[in-house]
Amino acid sequence: MAGSTFGTIFRITTWGESHGKALGVVIDGCPAGVPLEEADIQLFMDRRKPGNNPLATARKEGDKVEILSGVFEGVTTGCPISIVVKNEDQHSKDYSALEKVYRPGHADYTYDAKYGIRDYRGGGRSSGRETIGRVAAGAVAQKVLKTLGVDVYAYTRSIGPIEIDEENFCKDAIASTLSAMPDKEADQKVLEYMKDLKAHQDSIGGVMECVVEGLPAGIGNPVFDKLDADLSKAIMSIGAVKAVEIGDGVLASKAKGSENNDSFVLDKGEIVKQTNRAGGILGGMSDGSPIRIRAHVKPTPSISQEQATVHKEEGNIAIVIQGRHDPVIVPRAVVVMECMTAITVLDALLINMSSKIEDIYKFYQ
Amino acid sequence: MAGSTFGTIFRITTWGESHGKALGVVIDGCPAGVPLEEADIQLFMDRRKPGNNPLATARKEGDKVEILSGVFEGVTTGCPISIVVKNEDQHSKDYSALEKVYRPGHADYTYDAKYGIRDYRGGGRSSGRETIGRVAAGAVAQKVLKTLGVDVYAYTRSIGPIEIDEENFCKDAIASTLSAMPDKEADQKVLEYMKDLKAHQDSIGGVMECVVEGLPAGIGNPVFDKLDADLSKAIMSIGAVKAVEIGDGVLASKAKGSENNDSFVLDKGEIVKQTNRAGGILGGMSDGSPIRIRAHVKPTPSISQEQATVHKEEGNIAIVIQGRHDPVIVPRAVVVMECMTAITVLDALLINMSSKIEDIYKFYQ
Amino acid sequence: MAGSTFGTIFRITTWGESHGKALGVVIDGCPAGVPLEEADIQLFMDRRKPGNNPLATARKEGDKVEILSGVFEGVTTGCPISIVVKNEDQHSKDYSALEKVYRPGHADYTYDAKYGIRDYRGGGRSSGRETIGRVAAGAVAQKVLKTLGVDVYAYTRSIGPIEIDEENFCKDAIASTLSAMPDKEADQKVLEYMKDLKAHQDSIGGVMECVVEGLPAGIGNPVFDKLDADLSKAIMSIGAVKAVEIGDGVLASKAKGSENNDSFVLDKGEIVKQTNRAGGILGGMSDGSPIRIRAHVKPTPSISQEQATVHKEEGNIAIVIQGRHDPVIVPRAVVVMECMTAITVLDALLINMSSKIEDIYKFYQ
Amino acid sequence: MAGSTFGTIFRITTWGESHGKALGVVIDGCPAGVPLEEADIQLFMDRRKPGNNPLATARKEGDKVEILSGVFEGVTTGCPISIVVKNEDQHSKDYSALEKVYRPGHADYTYDAKYGIRDYRGGGRSSGRETIGRVAAGAVAQKVLKTLGVDVYAYTRSIGPIEIDEENFCKDAIASTLSAMPDKEADQKVLEYMKDLKAHQDSIGGVMECVVEGLPAGIGNPVFDKLDADLSKAIMSIGAVKAVEIGDGVLASKAKGSENNDSFVLDKGEIVKQTNRAGGILGGMSDGSPIRIRAHVKPTPSISQEQATVHKEEGNIAIVIQGRHDPVIVPRAVVVMECMTAITVLDALLINMSSKIEDIYKFYQ
Repeated sequence: MAGSTFGTIFRITTWGESHGKALGVVIDGCPAGVPLEEADIQLFMDRRKPGNNPLATARKEGDKVEILSGVFEGVTTGCPISIVVKNEDQHSKDYSALEKVYRPGHADYTYDAKYGIRDYRGGGRSSGRETIGRVAAGAVAQKVLKTLGVDVYAYTRSIGPIEIDEENFCKDAIASTLSAMPDKEADQKVLEYMKDLKAHQDSIGGVMECVVEGLPAGIGNPVFDKLDADLSKAIMSIGAVKAVEIGDGVLASKAKGSENNDSFVLDKGEIVKQTNRAGGILGGMSDGSPIRIRAHVKPTPSISQEQATVHKEEGNIAIVIQGRHDPVIVPRAVVVMECMTAITVLDALLINMSSKIEDIYKFYQ
Repeated sequence: MAGSTFGTIFRITTWGESHGKALGVVIDGCPAGVPLEEADIQLFMDRRKPGNNPLATARKEGDKVEILSGVFEGVTTGCPISIVVKNEDQHSKDYSALEKVYRPGHADYTYDAKYGIRDYRGGGRSSGRETIGRVAAGAVAQKVLKTLGVDVYAYTRSIGPIEIDEENFCKDAIASTLSAMPDKEADQKVLEYMKDLKAHQDSIGGVMECVVEGLPAGIGNPVFDKLDADLSKAIMSIGAVKAVEIGDGVLASKAKGSENNDSFVLDKGEIVKQTNRAGGILGGMSDGSPIRIRAHVKPTPSISQEQATVHKEEGNIAIVIQGRHDPVIVPRAVVVMECMTAITVLDALLINMSSKIEDIYKFYQ
Repeated sequence: MAGSTFGTIFRITTWGESHGKALGVVIDGCPAGVPLEEADIQLFMDRRKPGNNPLATARKEGDKVEILSGVFEGVTTGCPISIVVKNEDQHSKDYSALEKVYRPGHADYTYDAKYGIRDYRGGGRSSGRETIGRVAAGAVAQKVLKTLGVDVYAYTRSIGPIEIDEENFCKDAIASTLSAMPDKEADQKVLEYMKDLKAHQDSIGGVMECVVEGLPAGIGNPVFDKLDADLSKAIMSIGAVKAVEIGDGVLASKAKGSENNDSFVLDKGEIVKQTNRAGGILGGMSDGSPIRIRAHVKPTPSISQEQATVHKEEGNIAIVIQGRHDPVIVPRAVVVMECMTAITVLDALLINMSSKIEDIYKFYQ
Repeated sequence: MAGSTFGTIFRITTWGESHGKALGVVIDGCPAGVPLEEADIQLFMDRRKPGNNPLATARKEGDKVEILSGVFEGVTTGCPISIVVKNEDQHSKDYSALEKVYRPGHADYTYDAKYGIRDYRGGGRSSGRETIGRVAAGAVAQKVLKTLGVDVYAYTRSIGPIEIDEENFCKDAIASTLSAMPDKEADQKVLEYMKDLKAHQDSIGGVMECVVEGLPAGIGNPVFDKLDADLSKAIMSIGAVKAVEIGDGVLASKAKGSENNDSFVLDKGEIVKQTNRAGGILGGMSDGSPIRIRAHVKPTPSISQEQATVHKEEGNIAIVIQGRHDPVIVPRAVVVMECMTAITVLDALLINMSSKIEDIYKFYQ
């Protein structure tokens, strides 16, 4: 069935495979009147682009963004925005050996089980390139959110054993470090660590974190479309994510009520929380504090070490995976997490406009 | 907007507040021909019912299930099944003091922020009693899944510092222990621990786990409606859940590819995984191994200790929360997790029937 | 699958069968802050209630409305509103003879074909009583629309050969005539006509019309969720409706462009149409003129004349349908059409609030 | 909001404007294993293509179909199918005079009202070219339906005063006549009629009809997603359609029950209807007889006669519309109606697979 659409009012539909002609997204429900050009989107696309980075695959893709509809004279019209990125540097032949082999940790086996056929070139639809559509749509969502004073940003929290030190936290560093860490020292350690890892032909997992600031209280739709529930779906739908935490997350399960509750206090006439263990969400709605989400990412399943698996015809075999792969997914996935968060938050903001009759009345007066 | 509906083909809509006249659910899309009576649902309802249990609130509710539609002569007809449970033991007056107070850790503030009004009696819609509709629907989903050979069960993994010992694992114990732990020894420790906790007027968090066995491979709908994404939403939408893990979950972020990949192997002609770090899901679809999900639950926010908060008119105040509350949410939430998982898995199974043209062709021949 | 839910933001889910325990609806996404009591809904329910009316079935039902959730201290809270009406005067035994018989013009055969089982008592889910949920929800939508200055009203246009005379049009008469016609003379003719019809044990079709006044321009969502498309679905989903027209409707297919186009003209600074052949909708969005929809309703299929049909076991048979039936559906269906229109229009109004970035910006400033 | 998506399991999302870079569709949920190539779709696209036809616009477009994803080695993979058609022959300058003018009968005014901006070149998103995405998706649906033995075909029933004669009905003629009529004599009369019409610089409306044969009984989902309700939405969403009829349609409103009921009869062990006034749908589900739908289409609003309208700055003006326009929409819209019907029917067929527990059990055994 149709699983490639996400969102209710700001709704995206992505398509495309790793080695097909192109990948893209249709954004339906983007408000009219937003100034938008390809450069706005390219900025985000370049953050997930592979390239000359020891942490990323050697595949070279320009990932050039083209807008085909929904924008007229530089402004969104309210009509669906179709965005396309062509594939260029496909080495499809690298993959012919994989036609009948199920790579461990990959989706080869499950795609075959469900559909009876799969585009085995570069993982087909299950490739990381699938996220191109998400990032293009997220770039548009970010542009709208900025207008509304909502700031969404994500970064790498840890790669394997190396974690950022909160004391070194520097938001600007996210864009300049190869690891997308907001801590230049930790970033250096990561680079050292990755050298060693590559020498062992292995890959590593990591943690990414996303923060939403400036969101008013009351955003989210209980009891199923709670903001934390929708964010969990959005983030967990990114390939390789295996756990999602909101605020204190797993720590909350060891905490006592007296420790975990965030007290409210009046601060210059505003109701604020004194702490933010809740991660900005209470009862499935934003509470005015920053929203904090963490995603745990598994190591890249493609490694050059020999692994045991099954060949459809030959039975049990050993394989060594060829091709070009990221030794760690996190640095390039950070922008994907940020984009999925932005899309989810924007959709919830738009839905929220009709919560109260007085607001509706004022709107239509 | 409408956030009280969940699912695509097997679709549930819940309604009701803690101190309203009743709570319930409409199940739309339940297949016709399923034998169903109120007792089937009551069995599940009794597992979440409060009662004479040192781990639960003292509120006494019969929580008697009534089916109003969709079942004819003991069999489902394919028409919407409306299920209602009346509220009986409301002590609404306990709550009048809370009309203008925002309890820490509760949704009072966010409901006010969104809607400008809230039913403050017992938490209104944000009460744990909201889950009555989920459990009623989940009972029906479980009945259908059993027919299909799919076994979904959940249990308490830990309460505060006390965790089950895998070596003591006894599935039958889940139903008989007060903590819903599959380990009688751990359960005993929990009872001791809770005595101490109550003496300190505090509450505690915990971890619950759900397992799905017997699910065929290929269930789930990439790229957004992946099985793990939908399960994360389903579980995170349960009040008090702050983190969701699939398989190894947070551990995957520290692991290497060589450790984390599950190798495939032919076993008596069947392709199986040698290990199950993935928790039964690859690329967003079931892989034939058991699905393992963990949910981290925060401590009950209602505690009798004095807490700082804000009164809408009086400003900063200290409150002591009266009323009847569970000192730990987990034992009663386990059945809710099981039910949300069952609903999600059943919906995905029904959607999956039209994945391949050859299956459709065979169906309509 | 789940076909009992309608709407996106203002979303209703109906349930219940003719001879089950009760029928009802859950309204999810109703804005918070709307004053609402059972009497508001009862007013609409009484318009569809059978009773001592020569045009209606003799079945006597109080159709007493009960609100079970979503309203607190007389005001909607934004949470799902559950409304229930109990069945009282079921003569289920009247129907036992129909268990294995397919009544001509009824849905008996198709329900059996789809589900393999059907509640044959009084048509089960396919009974006209199914509309109770629609009317309850429509009453709430009407209450909200009134606040916004939108007036939705429906009436009988014709019954068999007798049509209203536009010159006699009197809106107030709709509520007082037994036929729900806005023309007292035509109503008298209908009563005469029906006597004759009853003497022949026959039933008759008719036409109902619905008008929406005060709707701002721009409501509706191209290209699939156009206002006329959604209205058509809403109206066609009412049992016995066989055709839907917008504005000039079928006449447009014989018209020339020079005749059919409505010219725009500036009238006191406002852009208005000089004529309204379009029926208030252009390009799938409201154009500021009144919206006009017509629905063509087939005659009641239950007639006391002998008819040929099939018995599951006995093969070809002749039947005479017992029980209590309306000789014409239209007068009681008028309120259903009005309600479905109100629900559709309100949903479109709520969705429309996020069409322009400047409106969103103003809202969140 | 997002109104450009249609369908639940077989779900399409269209995008593109008349004078943008391209138009297209994403088909999500197409079953895997369907042989598909661009030529399959081109065949349908050519039926709606403008060209050297006295009944159509002079705009020349190759309308060349390109598949960008979802097909691997000539077979669908179950992943979203992205199809694109580039615009070529845009005379955008023809339209600059229309920037501030509201053409009568067009959507210029309503798009401005809703979005505050519109792509005024050739009608933008409200152009007939918007249907390119519908036709591409419908071609795929038709390919699947053919495999299942379901035949969907549409044709012109009347243009202005000229209607087909049922006695001349020749299905093969649909493809060969310029009017898409299944009656060569009527087609000749249309050509004569159109000459005269053109001489008067006018346009004309018409009626199209669609038939579905071979559909099993029980398809459709009461009470809102009834097959006739969904078809009505699908057809009414096509620009210029002003009325939809099922079976006898408007005639049913003048009929008596004794005339309108279709009797059931056993014919060689099969239950069939002796007549088909119902148009193949009872209670919102297919009844095994052919489904018959009629759509009434208004005349092309663009005519070269002078018309009164409003200019945003100059106020009341007279305009003569330049550009290239079809004098009648019906012949090119027939394939659009056929495609929307095919999409709706296929989606309903896929959803239907999970109606009965015994079918689900058999499927998963």
